[in-house]
Amino acid sequence: MTTADALLDRYDEVRAYTERLAAPLSPEDQTVQSMPDVSPTKWHRAHVTWFFESFVLAENESSFRQFQDQYWFLFNSYYEAVGPRYSRPLRGVISRPGAHDVGRYRSNVDDRMRDLVSGIDEGTLGKLAPTIELGFHHEQQHQELLLMDIKHVLSLNPLQPVYAGAPLRSADPGRLGWKHYDGGLVEIGHDATTEGTFCFDNELPRHQQWLEPYRLADRLVTNGEWLDFMADGGYRRAELWLSDGWAKVQGEQWRAPFYWTEHDGVWLEHTLHGTFPVDPALPVCHVSHYEADAYATWAGKRLPTEAEWEHAASLEDRSQPANLADGETWHPRAAGPGTGGLRQLFGDCWEWTSSAYLPYPGFHPAAGAIGEYNGKFMSNQMVLRGGCALTPPGHARASYRNFFPPGARWPVTGLRLADGAAA
Amino acid sequence: MTTADALLDRYDEVRAYTERLAAPLSPEDQTVQSMPDVSPTKWHRAHVTWFFESFVLAENESSFRQFQDQYWFLFNSYYEAVGPRYSRPLRGVISRPGAHDVGRYRSNVDDRMRDLVSGIDEGTLGKLAPTIELGFHHEQQHQELLLMDIKHVLSLNPLQPVYAGAPLRSADPGRLGWKHYDGGLVEIGHDATTEGTFCFDNELPRHQQWLEPYRLADRLVTNGEWLDFMADGGYRRAELWLSDGWAKVQGEQWRAPFYWTEHDGVWLEHTLHGTFPVDPALPVCHVSHYEADAYATWAGKRLPTEAEWEHAASLEDRSQPANLADGETWHPRAAGPGTGGLRQLFGDCWEWTSSAYLPYPGFHPAAGAIGEYNGKFMSNQMVLRGGCALTPPGHARASYRNFFPPGARWPVTGLRLADGAAA
Amino acid sequence: MTTADALLDRYDEVRAYTERLAAPLSPEDQTVQSMPDVSPTKWHRAHVTWFFESFVLAENESSFRQFQDQYWFLFNSYYEAVGPRYSRPLRGVISRPGAHDVGRYRSNVDDRMRDLVSGIDEGTLGKLAPTIELGFHHEQQHQELLLMDIKHVLSLNPLQPVYAGAPLRSADPGRLGWKHYDGGLVEIGHDATTEGTFCFDNELPRHQQWLEPYRLADRLVTNGEWLDFMADGGYRRAELWLSDGWAKVQGEQWRAPFYWTEHDGVWLEHTLHGTFPVDPALPVCHVSHYEADAYATWAGKRLPTEAEWEHAASLEDRSQPANLADGETWHPRAAGPGTGGLRQLFGDCWEWTSSAYLPYPGFHPAAGAIGEYNGKFMSNQMVLRGGCALTPPGHARASYRNFFPPGARWPVTGLRLADGAAA
Amino acid sequence: MTTADALLDRYDEVRAYTERLAAPLSPEDQTVQSMPDVSPTKWHRAHVTWFFESFVLAENESSFRQFQDQYWFLFNSYYEAVGPRYSRPLRGVISRPGAHDVGRYRSNVDDRMRDLVSGIDEGTLGKLAPTIELGFHHEQQHQELLLMDIKHVLSLNPLQPVYAGAPLRSADPGRLGWKHYDGGLVEIGHDATTEGTFCFDNELPRHQQWLEPYRLADRLVTNGEWLDFMADGGYRRAELWLSDGWAKVQGEQWRAPFYWTEHDGVWLEHTLHGTFPVDPALPVCHVSHYEADAYATWAGKRLPTEAEWEHAASLEDRSQPANLADGETWHPRAAGPGTGGLRQLFGDCWEWTSSAYLPYPGFHPAAGAIGEYNGKFMSNQMVLRGGCALTPPGHARASYRNFFPPGARWPVTGLRLADGAAA
Repeated sequence: MTTADALLDRYDEVRAYTERLAAPLSPEDQTVQSMPDVSPTKWHRAHVTWFFESFVLAENESSFRQFQDQYWFLFNSYYEAVGPRYSRPLRGVISRPGAHDVGRYRSNVDDRMRDLVSGIDEGTLGKLAPTIELGFHHEQQHQELLLMDIKHVLSLNPLQPVYAGAPLRSADPGRLGWKHYDGGLVEIGHDATTEGTFCFDNELPRHQQWLEPYRLADRLVTNGEWLDFMADGGYRRAELWLSDGWAKVQGEQWRAPFYWTEHDGVWLEHTLHGTFPVDPALPVCHVSHYEADAYATWAGKRLPTEAEWEHAASLEDRSQPANLADGETWHPRAAGPGTGGLRQLFGDCWEWTSSAYLPYPGFHPAAGAIGEYNGKFMSNQMVLRGGCALTPPGHARASYRNFFPPGARWPVTGLRLADGAAA
Repeated sequence: MTTADALLDRYDEVRAYTERLAAPLSPEDQTVQSMPDVSPTKWHRAHVTWFFESFVLAENESSFRQFQDQYWFLFNSYYEAVGPRYSRPLRGVISRPGAHDVGRYRSNVDDRMRDLVSGIDEGTLGKLAPTIELGFHHEQQHQELLLMDIKHVLSLNPLQPVYAGAPLRSADPGRLGWKHYDGGLVEIGHDATTEGTFCFDNELPRHQQWLEPYRLADRLVTNGEWLDFMADGGYRRAELWLSDGWAKVQGEQWRAPFYWTEHDGVWLEHTLHGTFPVDPALPVCHVSHYEADAYATWAGKRLPTEAEWEHAASLEDRSQPANLADGETWHPRAAGPGTGGLRQLFGDCWEWTSSAYLPYPGFHPAAGAIGEYNGKFMSNQMVLRGGCALTPPGHARASYRNFFPPGARWPVTGLRLADGAAA
Repeated sequence: MTTADALLDRYDEVRAYTERLAAPLSPEDQTVQSMPDVSPTKWHRAHVTWFFESFVLAENESSFRQFQDQYWFLFNSYYEAVGPRYSRPLRGVISRPGAHDVGRYRSNVDDRMRDLVSGIDEGTLGKLAPTIELGFHHEQQHQELLLMDIKHVLSLNPLQPVYAGAPLRSADPGRLGWKHYDGGLVEIGHDATTEGTFCFDNELPRHQQWLEPYRLADRLVTNGEWLDFMADGGYRRAELWLSDGWAKVQGEQWRAPFYWTEHDGVWLEHTLHGTFPVDPALPVCHVSHYEADAYATWAGKRLPTEAEWEHAASLEDRSQPANLADGETWHPRAAGPGTGGLRQLFGDCWEWTSSAYLPYPGFHPAAGAIGEYNGKFMSNQMVLRGGCALTPPGHARASYRNFFPPGARWPVTGLRLADGAAA
Repeated sequence: MTTADALLDRYDEVRAYTERLAAPLSPEDQTVQSMPDVSPTKWHRAHVTWFFESFVLAENESSFRQFQDQYWFLFNSYYEAVGPRYSRPLRGVISRPGAHDVGRYRSNVDDRMRDLVSGIDEGTLGKLAPTIELGFHHEQQHQELLLMDIKHVLSLNPLQPVYAGAPLRSADPGRLGWKHYDGGLVEIGHDATTEGTFCFDNELPRHQQWLEPYRLADRLVTNGEWLDFMADGGYRRAELWLSDGWAKVQGEQWRAPFYWTEHDGVWLEHTLHGTFPVDPALPVCHVSHYEADAYATWAGKRLPTEAEWEHAASLEDRSQPANLADGETWHPRAAGPGTGGLRQLFGDCWEWTSSAYLPYPGFHPAAGAIGEYNGKFMSNQMVLRGGCALTPPGHARASYRNFFPPGARWPVTGLRLADGAAA
């Protein structure tokens, strides 16, 4: 297979998957922005298309013309270098282009991308390929966002609509075990020799860090354990919380994870399958960094640093099956029996770390608009590691750095405990 | 024709007209709430249906069952007596029921209304008819709101979508003349003998008021006259404004009527036909009470009181044609040559008065939930009279009291000058 | 006594009274702005001084020079015509000039005013006298505001400081009676022949109004009656409230009048004498228009219009003693036994009317900055009549129109019931 | 000297210094809270007193009684464990206790502290001494806050009041040089053997970190260099900024450092000596982390990590004179000629680092209320190192970790550039 063919196969695969994820959603579903952090489904579908049009076609298509000039304004997310952009919190007031019009935009760009990639010489394609591949990974990120966002949209509807499928059957989460690490001088950051060639700029450069000896829990914290925390006054005891977290608990009246509601004394959880009684066996999810930190304090433990997590992950056998988006469970699963290794490491829930999202030593963002991808968000955010049940498979690797503000609750976020350990 | 047949003919007519107004709008258009004051089209379509279901069917249908119990929660606008209701500013986050589902709700209630009205005895029908007729007038109010609201939704879209039709051709607005009234002890309020049997409770009781002699302009203020006001510093001169109005001018940076935008030195106006250069011949519209009051002060005049307006209107020949929704102009028209009477009295633009919206002497709201229709809004609002190009014909009568807060700009509002006059 | 001497006597009297009211307050007390509506005591003391400096001295003093040029910026309240002014909600962040510096400013202006008035010829003085007299009335208004405002400042302090004096002894409020009025064509507005020569522009012109027959309660509603309203769910029953009022009840969680707090099941009231159990015999005060309206609805009555109130007041014997600021009770008193007339008409509590604050027919504001005194506030406010225990005596007359937004609770406001009546 | 005598000498010294700093401020100055982050001077004076009363006297004084029970409520800053506390943003509405009353509170606690320390046995004193010493350092922190806060209060006053003294004479800032460090495995955290016995809990434990080779600028960035940044579009070029920083630039319209205002084309700087033209020779101060980061990006450099800073500082000769509060300059000074070492390392301006404020490996907060001192603030803040011209001498040491949110501008904050360097 030529490079061009391989690229186009991958292109078609990624693009088709987005449409498959959007397929269960009506034009009305695809229009709603339920809070400023959330984007409408049809906006996601258009924005990832705009990425290819503006970063690949614009510079390389002979006789380039925008599909619709206002789309560049509407579907630019945050690239200051590309020009003015439409206000993010107002994405939900734009009824047109409709879901169907966005489909036509996608088809048009798909045709032009295929023409471009098939038609250019190998040398030019070699230079272009990294940007196209970045476009794949960008679209996959938005596949996860699309699911996260529509989960929130549907959660606000008193009719309790279902995105897809049936609830998970319960299962034994297994006993929580601990795994010991000696620490010392370790290397973290993306390693192309073991993890494949692609990574985001924020995973580089690979570099050394000194780690004290530590332990990690071998599975995620469960809903059942979280219920114990709640029963023990977890949301009412200031001494367990970071100051900013306690302000949130009081200001937003947090009493439980984000999608939990109490009804006649029973805690229910909104999922993409519908709303059901909380299953104690499943990992707790949709908790903020503040909640994760408070839980760890309550448990007499702490969250891992991202270096601890990555170092540990690099030692694991990567062939274990992971609960990612391709499994179409749309929700974290119970851990199952202990394996000797770290269970639920990739998939299920993104795992909050205690590390702020900051540049690695020697980090430099890429030149041009693409350079805005990651670096400019390096403030007021915490790193998460691992992946979740809504993450496309290509986005789960040991060096992957996801990040959200410590108060964010709508991503599929859980926690794994850590501990300092005598060496 | 029997009473039942007449009622059902009217029912079908009113209900079909709502659907005709919504027909040009896509499911996405019908979903958006562009600001808290605006409701989505499909919400309007459902809410007027809920009105019949809850105020007519619920008490009178044998073996009544709600079409969908959550609809009662979702589509109650403000009737506290009917139970809890969904938060108004969040109407735009509800993607389901979709536009099509709302159509099914409408059909179901239509069938049940027809069965009920055809099936009950004349006596019962006689008692029920006033509530059904109130439902017609209620639905007509929402027909106007639907158009006002979608105008706002579309206005925010950089693609500048069009609701319908083509722009008005310009025409001479005619010279502004003045008509004199002696005042004295006059009667205002609804008079069933001259204006037909239906009115809202806030138009009653008919009562006496003492009026000083006054004059009214015989047509509305035009865009051309408004441009003179702007050129003379109208939006920059504090001395012309009520204090609350000046706070709005500064806080929201008002520089022109609501739907005007300046582009390369040319003022453009967003209309339901699209966006066009401001036509000086047309009446100015989408100005707040504050702006209307400032203009009148600038012109050395004032706004009429509602009693002055109504007394004058009662003296006019009502056979003059009016630019209301049935004309499908969707916009105010130029006044045309003077007639000796008050031009543009009904239709074109709602006319701000200087009267606060307060109860008439002896006013009592109806008993029960229906009593919440009007009385409870009698604070912080100003009365408007006449009707506009989006008003269904049945809503234009001399005693009709429309009302909005003095800062509202998204209704189709203009002004007619008044003046004290030597007797 | 010459005109000049009489003016100066009055000047000294008014100015000294302000200082007497401020005397119990420490420099720190005089500095605090407890909410945007409230001004610091020292700001009031300076602002009324600025009024004389800018409206009298500036135009008439030979070789006029401002005492301090920044004071014109700091102590202009809302006169746009006088130039830019300091932001109202930030009056509390200005520690200097301190209370003592303001005293020096007052003395300086007092000296210059005395020089000016003693030194100019009778003719010039005649032209100037109305503005000086306006300055007296302006300062008296601020005397009441100073007391209202410091009451709020002290109310927020957990130490419960006392402004002055001892609590009122309780007394029998007397039975509530009703007084009948025939209505018809009456005159309202200031009448110089019966009420003295001074009035504000908003009390003019005197004009005719048609009144239906009506009745007025012969005393104010008491705390005891208000407790009945509360016990009957007054603050929990939406059907009693104007829509805007109900939004306040819910948004600000109103459960009782403004200065009431519940402690171990007992309602306490903050007063200028300290905090004490609510006395059922005293008039209820510090209720908003919304609360007054809801109470009247609950009682099956309504509030009077301002024309009804003024017409009734004009028929009363004005020699009855009134509980105004000169009595130094600093709080409304119990009504005492019926008198055949309207008790508590002047003083005790300002009485909410059902009338919006709007211009009288033919009203024109004065020319220049003085014209900003009243007219520009004629929107979103309701008229109050009568006066209160903090009102200087010169401010209680039948035609006096006080006004506040319907949600205001920090003025000393109560209510008198009204009723339509068979003739 | 006995331990008790030494402690009491130090006690008297620290306590007297607070009063000396407050002495130039009037009762009104001491009352104002100019923004939620700022506390009134008299609040600081009372709060540090409350610290001794609640953490030392309460547990150790025989027959302990609070000076005033409400003071515990009013003057608790953020210790949840001590009980409910008064709302921080409302500290400025409390006029009483006044400045003089706070003085009486201070004297009372001073007397009781002296009695306690003189009267108890050596063993008990030994256990108590660390808490008393913490009280000294706590009070010193508030000495700096008092100055920072009053600087803000006075800055808002159009009269431009002066706290003290005369402006600095300008001086040559000296050429910016660079100093190289090899990095490798270094130790950071408080080292009692070289830095004295006291430190805060957040400076512990001392631990290893791996550092890549790096360089540090040998002096702070100057106003002159900052003016170059501004002239080159520093505040208008999105590509230089962190995303959150750019949102601040736009939302709060930042165009220059916090206390700079432009007047007729000249930049003026508010200082504690008054307002003067910006001196290009002085270090830039009152810039946020966002601004510091953007400047570094513009300069092709970066900010140092806290480990880089501390490691470099530990190598410096600590005998160099520092511009701290005892010098009473109240403002950063020009650096002067190069010394071969790092100039301006302690004093002048706090230096933003690129490190988020997070726990050191193995950090555990102290037990009880004292444990709330530092740990609970470890989110959304950035570390600053060094000290500033308002810092009491005892607060400048290599391991000291100051912290503020990245948008904070009212502390005396500047920056020193860093760079990765070939080894």
